[in-house]
Amino acid sequence: MAAKTKYLLDESEMPTQWYNIVPDLPSPPPPALHPGTREPAGPEDFAPLFPMALIMQEVSQDPYIDIPEEVQEVYKLWRPSPLYRAHRLEKALDTPAKIYYKYEGVSPAGSHKPNTSVPQAYYNKAEGITKLTTETGAGQWGTALAFACSLFDMECEVWQVRASYDQKPYRKAMIETFGATIHPSPSDLTEYGRKLLAEDPNNPGSLGIAISEAVEMAAPYPEVRYALGSVLNHVLMHQTIIGEEAIKQLEMAGDTPDVIIGCTGGGSNFAGLTFPFMREKMAGNMNPTIRAVEPAACPSLTKGAYAYDFGDSAGMTPLMKMHTLGHDFIPDDIHAGGLRYHGMSPLISHIYELGMMEAISINQTECFEAGVMFARNEGIVPAPEPTHALAGTVREALDAKEAGEERVILTALCGHGHLDLAAYDRYFSGEMVDYEYPEAKVQDALSRLPQGL
Amino acid sequence: MAAKTKYLLDESEMPTQWYNIVPDLPSPPPPALHPGTREPAGPEDFAPLFPMALIMQEVSQDPYIDIPEEVQEVYKLWRPSPLYRAHRLEKALDTPAKIYYKYEGVSPAGSHKPNTSVPQAYYNKAEGITKLTTETGAGQWGTALAFACSLFDMECEVWQVRASYDQKPYRKAMIETFGATIHPSPSDLTEYGRKLLAEDPNNPGSLGIAISEAVEMAAPYPEVRYALGSVLNHVLMHQTIIGEEAIKQLEMAGDTPDVIIGCTGGGSNFAGLTFPFMREKMAGNMNPTIRAVEPAACPSLTKGAYAYDFGDSAGMTPLMKMHTLGHDFIPDDIHAGGLRYHGMSPLISHIYELGMMEAISINQTECFEAGVMFARNEGIVPAPEPTHALAGTVREALDAKEAGEERVILTALCGHGHLDLAAYDRYFSGEMVDYEYPEAKVQDALSRLPQGL
Repeated sequence: MAAKTKYLLDESEMPTQWYNIVPDLPSPPPPALHPGTREPAGPEDFAPLFPMALIMQEVSQDPYIDIPEEVQEVYKLWRPSPLYRAHRLEKALDTPAKIYYKYEGVSPAGSHKPNTSVPQAYYNKAEGITKLTTETGAGQWGTALAFACSLFDMECEVWQVRASYDQKPYRKAMIETFGATIHPSPSDLTEYGRKLLAEDPNNPGSLGIAISEAVEMAAPYPEVRYALGSVLNHVLMHQTIIGEEAIKQLEMAGDTPDVIIGCTGGGSNFAGLTFPFMREKMAGNMNPTIRAVEPAACPSLTKGAYAYDFGDSAGMTPLMKMHTLGHDFIPDDIHAGGLRYHGMSPLISHIYELGMMEAISINQTECFEAGVMFARNEGIVPAPEPTHALAGTVREALDAKEAGEERVILTALCGHGHLDLAAYDRYFSGEMVDYEYPEAKVQDALSRLPQGL
Repeated sequence: MAAKTKYLLDESEMPTQWYNIVPDLPSPPPPALHPGTREPAGPEDFAPLFPMALIMQEVSQDPYIDIPEEVQEVYKLWRPSPLYRAHRLEKALDTPAKIYYKYEGVSPAGSHKPNTSVPQAYYNKAEGITKLTTETGAGQWGTALAFACSLFDMECEVWQVRASYDQKPYRKAMIETFGATIHPSPSDLTEYGRKLLAEDPNNPGSLGIAISEAVEMAAPYPEVRYALGSVLNHVLMHQTIIGEEAIKQLEMAGDTPDVIIGCTGGGSNFAGLTFPFMREKMAGNMNPTIRAVEPAACPSLTKGAYAYDFGDSAGMTPLMKMHTLGHDFIPDDIHAGGLRYHGMSPLISHIYELGMMEAISINQTECFEAGVMFARNEGIVPAPEPTHALAGTVREALDAKEAGEERVILTALCGHGHLDLAAYDRYFSGEMVDYEYPEAKVQDALSRLPQGL
């Protein structure tokens, strides 16, 4: 049988459970700590922020959790998502490697984010919540939550990092099309935002700051909750439908992965693809190398400390043990992509410490070069985030060529770049430069981490 | 069996032939005329513009033409495209109608246009052509041709209507990502462009003007040809793969269409969906009403004359009998969508005259209202063009509700609106107003049509 271009699953083959990797790990991840007492945080500590169903998922020891039927119905608007064999990219690279990519850009928001925004809205609605607040950086998550809230007839209010808000007016229009309200962050709507603006009216914002604002506008109000687009266990778990589908699709293609490559910011897309494969690897069914690629400009896994830190800039969230560049990290403006969060998902950080995966960082011009090559051969303009995974894939495919090996590479194309074309424009005009996060700044930021934990 | 959300075909089920409706029509369409002699134009008159393979398709009497294998391979990057059942939109409208939409936004350019750009590039390349020129309005066609040329290693030069070029910088970036060169039109690169700029340096451009520029930069050069994104018979024929797939997919769903609704600019998307269904209707296999929806701001079918006119503004192309607003038509700036061509495809014009289809025009705010409703329920932000088809679909679904009839409606969602979000922004801010093309301007333009034909 000739190799196909796309491997599609019927709706009836869509996975009906999410995979929770926690109980399968050789040791449990360290607990979150209460920001005040610094004792292990209990479910009640998360209750002002999240509905109980999600808190229970956050700490669940069940390896599988059923996807509610109402969520499955929404998933079917775009799921199962396609798995592609990148025949044309392989040919352009003249590599014996087989390159597969799982494409999440078919979703309403154009990325993997609705895989979790939809269940988050669903569970909140089920507990009587009428409004969700959130932060967004490049805008993918804000779009995804706006869409999910529109489906369940809930209000949605989004704080977008000001630098992105100003550079990406199309995101605002898309978020409004889905019926949500959007503000640049820092904003004068919150106490924390007003404090920062008083210090510096031109504060460009950061994900940590926007999280603080969204949390401040949710926690005190009984009918309002906060929704996070990455980092937490339940968010990563919702994304595992990506990997579960990919396992079935690679079976259809008759291949087993030798290398799996994903990009990491907070880690949800990477976890979504790789956790189900880690399960298969732990069970001895396959033995892929699993590799995260992060931006050289925001290298939490490869350069950050593994330490307890806050999830937000104001220090309102529980403390989590994770690879972090420090909660007051503000990424450099010249970094064009997303993947700008100061920390890495605590669960991925733990798995990285367990030696179950690798991590590398790549500079942005190499990423955009890979993105353009991919677009011209495969016809999809990738978002800046997955160009990191693509650059890692190109490196691996060329390495396979040098070694003369027919390696099977699986990568995550977690979103399209239709709303990021200004970054491509900067790349073509030569304005884009590389920027490695300096060691001295790492040390400085780490000196401000909470001590004695 | 429960009704599904998506009806997907495997690559092996992708149609391998295009459908040519011409030999099945009760009478042939009137011939094109040479712009100088005004005698019927022969293949040699088109040779400076198109490769012989496409010219032969333009005048073919074969009902089916094989899709070259190399083109099929490229099609498989996104084809077969999905057919959706709009369960959530139906529920929001509280209608007994069943609404199906065939979605072409999954293509590299985000619209149906690559269905023809790819074979056009292929046939040109096969005849030794190294470069294609073209015009683009909103940018869909320029993106599609840029992508196709990148696959076949050809140069591509695009003239974009200046009003769109200035308003839509993302399109430029996307076209450059696919490796093409783009200029605003009118430009100082052509004799015609320089003439117009001398008369008015702020000329906003029109599709007719951009066509003239692209033709001027192709016709004199033996290794360069011109490519058109709609209007001509061969272009419409390449799009029939849409309808051929939809027939198979509606069979999977167990439904037969009562009403088929598409938007029309030049007519290629409408023809692509409806021609195969017209064949089935002529054969007595089904009896759908077939309806075109055009903008009230550019109503060629509903208000134009059915007369011989030029395809471009400068009068360089053959004369074609079509519904036209006059070749010097310049659409009003306040019209946000595409669908701005002064004429309608001669083949569709002929079929309209034969009474095989209906046409209506709808104002843009009603279209955007339908587009937003669609996005919030179905999760896809439509391009402004197919919001016309969606507005027509909403009207039909509400009519079915009033009549208490379970009508089966099929519509064409020919592209996503990710690069048109500025238009949604104008809609939300209340800046968008309706504009009906005035009767007096129609009469004025028609007075300048070529006489005595």
